[in-house]
Amino acid sequence: MTASSYQPRPEHKFSFGLWTVGWQGVDPFGVATRAPLDPVRTVHELAELGAWGVSFHDDDLIPFGSGDAERSARIAGFRKALDETGLVVPMATTNLFAHPVFKDGGLTANDRDVRRFALRKVLRNLDLAAELGASTYVLWGGREGAESPVAKDVAAALDRYAEALNLLCGYVREQGYDIRFALEPKPNEPRGDILLPTIGHALAFIGELDHPELVGLNPEVGHEQMAGLSVVHGIAQALWHDKLFHIDLNGQNGPRYDQDLRFGNGDVKTAFLLVDLLERGGYTGPRHFDFKPARTEDDAGVWASAAACMRNYLVFAERAAAFRADPSVKQALADSRVDGLAEPTLGAGESLAELRAEAFDPEDAAGRGMHYERLDQLALDHLFGVA
Amino acid sequence: MTASSYQPRPEHKFSFGLWTVGWQGVDPFGVATRAPLDPVRTVHELAELGAWGVSFHDDDLIPFGSGDAERSARIAGFRKALDETGLVVPMATTNLFAHPVFKDGGLTANDRDVRRFALRKVLRNLDLAAELGASTYVLWGGREGAESPVAKDVAAALDRYAEALNLLCGYVREQGYDIRFALEPKPNEPRGDILLPTIGHALAFIGELDHPELVGLNPEVGHEQMAGLSVVHGIAQALWHDKLFHIDLNGQNGPRYDQDLRFGNGDVKTAFLLVDLLERGGYTGPRHFDFKPARTEDDAGVWASAAACMRNYLVFAERAAAFRADPSVKQALADSRVDGLAEPTLGAGESLAELRAEAFDPEDAAGRGMHYERLDQLALDHLFGVA
Amino acid sequence: MTASSYQPRPEHKFSFGLWTVGWQGVDPFGVATRAPLDPVRTVHELAELGAWGVSFHDDDLIPFGSGDAERSARIAGFRKALDETGLVVPMATTNLFAHPVFKDGGLTANDRDVRRFALRKVLRNLDLAAELGASTYVLWGGREGAESPVAKDVAAALDRYAEALNLLCGYVREQGYDIRFALEPKPNEPRGDILLPTIGHALAFIGELDHPELVGLNPEVGHEQMAGLSVVHGIAQALWHDKLFHIDLNGQNGPRYDQDLRFGNGDVKTAFLLVDLLERGGYTGPRHFDFKPARTEDDAGVWASAAACMRNYLVFAERAAAFRADPSVKQALADSRVDGLAEPTLGAGESLAELRAEAFDPEDAAGRGMHYERLDQLALDHLFGVA
Amino acid sequence: MTASSYQPRPEHKFSFGLWTVGWQGVDPFGVATRAPLDPVRTVHELAELGAWGVSFHDDDLIPFGSGDAERSARIAGFRKALDETGLVVPMATTNLFAHPVFKDGGLTANDRDVRRFALRKVLRNLDLAAELGASTYVLWGGREGAESPVAKDVAAALDRYAEALNLLCGYVREQGYDIRFALEPKPNEPRGDILLPTIGHALAFIGELDHPELVGLNPEVGHEQMAGLSVVHGIAQALWHDKLFHIDLNGQNGPRYDQDLRFGNGDVKTAFLLVDLLERGGYTGPRHFDFKPARTEDDAGVWASAAACMRNYLVFAERAAAFRADPSVKQALADSRVDGLAEPTLGAGESLAELRAEAFDPEDAAGRGMHYERLDQLALDHLFGVA
Repeated sequence: MTASSYQPRPEHKFSFGLWTVGWQGVDPFGVATRAPLDPVRTVHELAELGAWGVSFHDDDLIPFGSGDAERSARIAGFRKALDETGLVVPMATTNLFAHPVFKDGGLTANDRDVRRFALRKVLRNLDLAAELGASTYVLWGGREGAESPVAKDVAAALDRYAEALNLLCGYVREQGYDIRFALEPKPNEPRGDILLPTIGHALAFIGELDHPELVGLNPEVGHEQMAGLSVVHGIAQALWHDKLFHIDLNGQNGPRYDQDLRFGNGDVKTAFLLVDLLERGGYTGPRHFDFKPARTEDDAGVWASAAACMRNYLVFAERAAAFRADPSVKQALADSRVDGLAEPTLGAGESLAELRAEAFDPEDAAGRGMHYERLDQLALDHLFGVA
Repeated sequence: MTASSYQPRPEHKFSFGLWTVGWQGVDPFGVATRAPLDPVRTVHELAELGAWGVSFHDDDLIPFGSGDAERSARIAGFRKALDETGLVVPMATTNLFAHPVFKDGGLTANDRDVRRFALRKVLRNLDLAAELGASTYVLWGGREGAESPVAKDVAAALDRYAEALNLLCGYVREQGYDIRFALEPKPNEPRGDILLPTIGHALAFIGELDHPELVGLNPEVGHEQMAGLSVVHGIAQALWHDKLFHIDLNGQNGPRYDQDLRFGNGDVKTAFLLVDLLERGGYTGPRHFDFKPARTEDDAGVWASAAACMRNYLVFAERAAAFRADPSVKQALADSRVDGLAEPTLGAGESLAELRAEAFDPEDAAGRGMHYERLDQLALDHLFGVA
Repeated sequence: MTASSYQPRPEHKFSFGLWTVGWQGVDPFGVATRAPLDPVRTVHELAELGAWGVSFHDDDLIPFGSGDAERSARIAGFRKALDETGLVVPMATTNLFAHPVFKDGGLTANDRDVRRFALRKVLRNLDLAAELGASTYVLWGGREGAESPVAKDVAAALDRYAEALNLLCGYVREQGYDIRFALEPKPNEPRGDILLPTIGHALAFIGELDHPELVGLNPEVGHEQMAGLSVVHGIAQALWHDKLFHIDLNGQNGPRYDQDLRFGNGDVKTAFLLVDLLERGGYTGPRHFDFKPARTEDDAGVWASAAACMRNYLVFAERAAAFRADPSVKQALADSRVDGLAEPTLGAGESLAELRAEAFDPEDAAGRGMHYERLDQLALDHLFGVA
Repeated sequence: MTASSYQPRPEHKFSFGLWTVGWQGVDPFGVATRAPLDPVRTVHELAELGAWGVSFHDDDLIPFGSGDAERSARIAGFRKALDETGLVVPMATTNLFAHPVFKDGGLTANDRDVRRFALRKVLRNLDLAAELGASTYVLWGGREGAESPVAKDVAAALDRYAEALNLLCGYVREQGYDIRFALEPKPNEPRGDILLPTIGHALAFIGELDHPELVGLNPEVGHEQMAGLSVVHGIAQALWHDKLFHIDLNGQNGPRYDQDLRFGNGDVKTAFLLVDLLERGGYTGPRHFDFKPARTEDDAGVWASAAACMRNYLVFAERAAAFRADPSVKQALADSRVDGLAEPTLGAGESLAELRAEAFDPEDAAGRGMHYERLDQLALDHLFGVA
């Protein structure tokens, strides 16, 4: 593959949220540095760059509080842009965090009328998602949490969260929508502590729902890294549970504020090995970028950073393929006995009594080297293109 | 309650691991600063301080590689001490991390013979645990992990972990032991990334086992705090899943090396609110301290710090009870509508169509204050005893 | 002291920034939840609560871009409120972060015309600060930093920062203002990495200035905690350098987004021991709260949280005094040889040769316990009021 | 440059500590997995790999408590190996952390006799360092700190630290040794909080010494990253103060236990940009690796990881040179006005009054994009070799 071949094409399934390139740069200490982006323009620009899909929050497309006429006009304009470009809408989601009414949460607000309003808002956008052909509906509960453990009854909050998911799954089944839900965990920010803070907590929660088969995950690279967790391990566990319904690719420099760096930036090695996992691990869904072009950028910088997300993914995919194909890597994997873990610990038909009778010299076994440093360095060599 | 009443008694169910007070102070940069503690003395000292139980790793009681005679003698001495003091053994566990043979893990080592040895080691100590009356058997997989994502096939590792748990549950059922397993999550250290890094990941994993009812959690306060997560939220979710089988109480100052501070030290407010949750939340198991007396301490300091763990728990319990009983707290909870979350979002018999038809003014609702600052300050006032 | 005596009075020197109680709740994911506060009302409310001083950014008092008439009117109104209440203005500062023109920094922006504009903005508000009697002028360089190490020449940036400080010190001297500058370090947010990220970096920088005696620090509790550093150690080092010119008191839960919790919340133990240090350590400046009332709060919650900042300080001060006065604490300090560190290591008139000739048995000395667990627990006992 | 050219040569000035490859794998949860390495063998192996220098703690070379005969024999053997291989000793240091006598610190222990012993230990090894031709003497104060702020009088500790440095500088001057001291900051581990926790704190401290010109820094990549700080910014500031006397290169995955990964592993992008800075920034000292080969490795893995440290450095250096030479990078730097920061903000001879009179339209200037995303992506492209 030559450098020129890092050209995104629809079969790569790259998608972007309207809110990503559309982020205007408002942060806790500063106002907008960029003008609003018209979703119609965004669709055309993304198509031009080689993207395949576009996702949205209800309020990205139709400003909160719009009347029916405005709503229809905006949807029509968006559909037209999709038709003209061939871009698809693989995913949609609800903004349950920006408006002050959600300051204490949406589906788990202490106030019941707010929860009911939140549920209505989800239902309405679910209809639009179905209409636009989305197959995944994301729930990021950024405001579902608390600053103080005495302010939120966590058990009750999880009950209400489950109630909401059960109602939504019931609705989707009743309507015959071909839609599955994907929960997006995050440890904190904007709330002091957010419910379902990691991939693990969300996976566990799903197991308690009425229709667990309809609910999976939309993990975000940076969110797991905010808790200092390995994203590769986390995504691997989500795949093990068959729950990687969607993914948010971006970058982050460890525990600090949510940076939403362009994909490939931040922890470069993890980004590379995550692509290695996605490409080998059976994930066939969208490669969705949920990033924020730095606030310092103008319009050109927005599109440059969006293009770089896709470029980095393609570089990593190429390098990962070369890594896996390299005979010295295969030998190194064998030397590290990586495949040995696939073999059951107990033999077929073997009893625990038989296992217990086996002789073993731990001192002897302790002397075997694992050769992980060499194997890991081969991964870096391939990342750098010097293998 | 007067200050003199912070006296631990058996009904408080305080327990300590042999390895806690027995920690000799070896750390990554220094050798032991204290002599080994004889488990028999430990039992007597803990009883003297007012503890109720003692827990152990196999190797705490019987040094790795001991012959049968030594093993029997050590067990007999330990039993005698238990009998003399009335201390119980509520929990036992296996050391699958100290010996070099486990450098790549125990139950998920790449080498099958190591996994088999690990399993044998667990089985052997499970028999002893049953013999000594333990009802909980903890698995902390400190070496189950990797420094490099290419060195460990996470899906295979989870398969092997599940295989091991299934075998162990089968064994316990077959033997008729009244024992349940408790997984102890930790994000990292000693491995770069540990499998099942948080309460959530472990809860999700349990859902995939053959006998999920036999497996729960033993969360450790400091381990969740190493990932910057809220321990109160995490334990509350574990309780929601009915999986808080045991708990390791200690202290930690956020993301850094595993500090194992005495309980009450570190994040004081969280420790207080965790006790509030445990005392109200239906947890009836041991209050187990898994801490390390600072390496600077001599023998006197060891017992002083153990006593302080229990004292702090009792102070927090007293203060939490006063907090919950205070009429102004009840009013503040009502003002913050904390109980409102208990009410289902959809009415009994109500349809989604009915919910969708409801009128609501978000601007109006957005103006309501939650009064959380006052409520949270009342918690601090009670912690300080100035309410 | 009785509970009723936690009443703030002017002699406690409590001050608040206009922007603290005035924060409207805009965060990275949500818009304002509270209406703007009129500075005049703020002055009256703070006085009512028992505060002594109020601080401001230029733009807090006079909206960016105001004409001269509006400027004069706003200043006059503010002065009147100060006169009516007796509140003083101990500190002022410049907003070099909110407007998009500062997206790449103020005094260290790559664009020279932006740097010049930033300097003008500081100079103008410095005149106002002098006019209102402020003796400290804070520089928080929140936008002085970079997201990428290739985008900012750090050496040049430090040169420009130093140039700006030298110009400002020159101006203050020339004008005869009785004002000293205080740098406020922060590791990150809103920039990916901020220049002078900790107390240490800022102290070192000051040593390179033309008039180091005119420049000190305004450390913020939460900013140091965002880097996982000990605030007590940091402030103690600042005092050791004689550079604690001002302090920003608030709370934070470790490495994550900047929480600006009310003082006393977050890491409670550190807050307590910080007050112990300030009260004993010779700091006589303002006790300035730089916090944000949670976004969930209405107007009542704003003032409740401001009052709680002061209340917590007074509780801690009372408890710290009791801790230091307690005979068992004095004994514990002696047992831990804390005072031993005050004695020079080399005797008066002693030579290194004499020191080298001394006999010493390290094994023997190694056996001495430090008794730190007991001493630290006494601190907690006093914090809880159970000593 | 071809792949084969990533061959370390003496002119690259790569050096290793005896304790790095010699680490036996003892960690907080496990005993040694590797046999001790003979320093003589280490010297030969390092020379074979292409290293230029070797550094040591006194106890690495001469076990604590050795008699004079053993001491002489060990030194002689080491010298012989140096002579045979041509390896130099650019740096030496003292182990003031492993022995229990230092459990409360060395130069800042509360116990004066311990401080005196620590000083003697430094003096003795300083003589050996001079004898072996070292020009840098490192002080890493890993035990100089506290777990509790009440256990250590920080001001007194800094006084004693300064006293020790002043005595050591005096000694070096008196002896005519061509040696400078380099302080190595670290935030925590093994102590709860270590004095002089970051590059900044140590730089500030140096400013208070009698002979600041004799004292600089030995920053360690991973130590700054444990506090979530930018190493590139930190090293750049150290260079700005002319205080980068030595450097410890390794890798770390953010705030957690001290990982001491091989250089190039961990935060790959930062490692690359750090080499870019060192190669351009005027640093001419040793490229010293202070890492630990993973505990899973056998002897072969030890040397493989040492070789990889040097290889990664050379790959980064090559890529950084290409990045700086690339015309599109030069254009991107210009587009981002990176050089604009070198120009003084005030014109030559210009007065502040003139500056203040200048007209400027902030709205207009706010619209300029900084083009940082593109510039940063070019850095990644060069790192991956796809520019």
